[in-house]
Amino acid sequence: MDAGRENVFSLSLKALVLDGQRRCLLLRRSPGSKNNPGKWEFPGGKMEPGEGFEEALKREVKEETNLDISLLRPCGTGMSRLPGRNVVYLFMLAGAEPGEVRLSEEHDLWCWVAPEDVGAMDLAAQFESIAQHLVTIVGNER
Amino acid sequence: MDAGRENVFSLSLKALVLDGQRRCLLLRRSPGSKNNPGKWEFPGGKMEPGEGFEEALKREVKEETNLDISLLRPCGTGMSRLPGRNVVYLFMLAGAEPGEVRLSEEHDLWCWVAPEDVGAMDLAAQFESIAQHLVTIVGNER
Repeated sequence: MDAGRENVFSLSLKALVLDGQRRCLLLRRSPGSKNNPGKWEFPGGKMEPGEGFEEALKREVKEETNLDISLLRPCGTGMSRLPGRNVVYLFMLAGAEPGEVRLSEEHDLWCWVAPEDVGAMDLAAQFESIAQHLVTIVGNER
Repeated sequence: MDAGRENVFSLSLKALVLDGQRRCLLLRRSPGSKNNPGKWEFPGGKMEPGEGFEEALKREVKEETNLDISLLRPCGTGMSRLPGRNVVYLFMLAGAEPGEVRLSEEHDLWCWVAPEDVGAMDLAAQFESIAQHLVTIVGNER
């Protein structure tokens, strides 16, 4: 039970954003990204100092996709163990408001993917586990 | 998928604190508590403005139990739907450092409970789901 004792933990909020057809929004990290270039991921990021939880996640999704979202419910967790630090992920299911996706420089492609197909994408490793549960997660949202 | 659209979401961090015998620390809310008096819960609380994730959870556990903890990994989520607002819970598995439990005024009893017995406690409703999974969660921590 000592794993991680010498590491610091930070929190990253990620949104599983659904469109009206219950497809999930995935973004591909730009070729020049420091971490995981070319890998697919969910939008989101860290809370800035003084920022609230909902405010932070909506801001990150807006910055990365231009979309406004409504939060629905938490749907899972994940963790990356990096040298000297661990990033904890909190995944929130969200609905996309009508709008057009426009990417920041952080990503170079986006796509809306049916829940059953997300696991076949070339995802960053820390998102593989939640991807396996996406059919159940989205199916429970009635 | 519109559930919660008119509600705000806030985040509460909760620690499933294990001792050397893999028992989990539960606290009973004081009789005068505004919410859930007399119900059992896990230590933790909200991040204060400008505070980091790990810092906030360790501070809350220290304030409520006098214990220092080491974080291990995220192990689940939960949500309370209250009038006009939703509280999202992020549960972190943690290990207790040696020390003596001392409660704040927020709680009036504590106990260390084997994972298989946590579900039988009179828990606040938002913790019933994670309690059902505690045997699996603790069992996976090898």
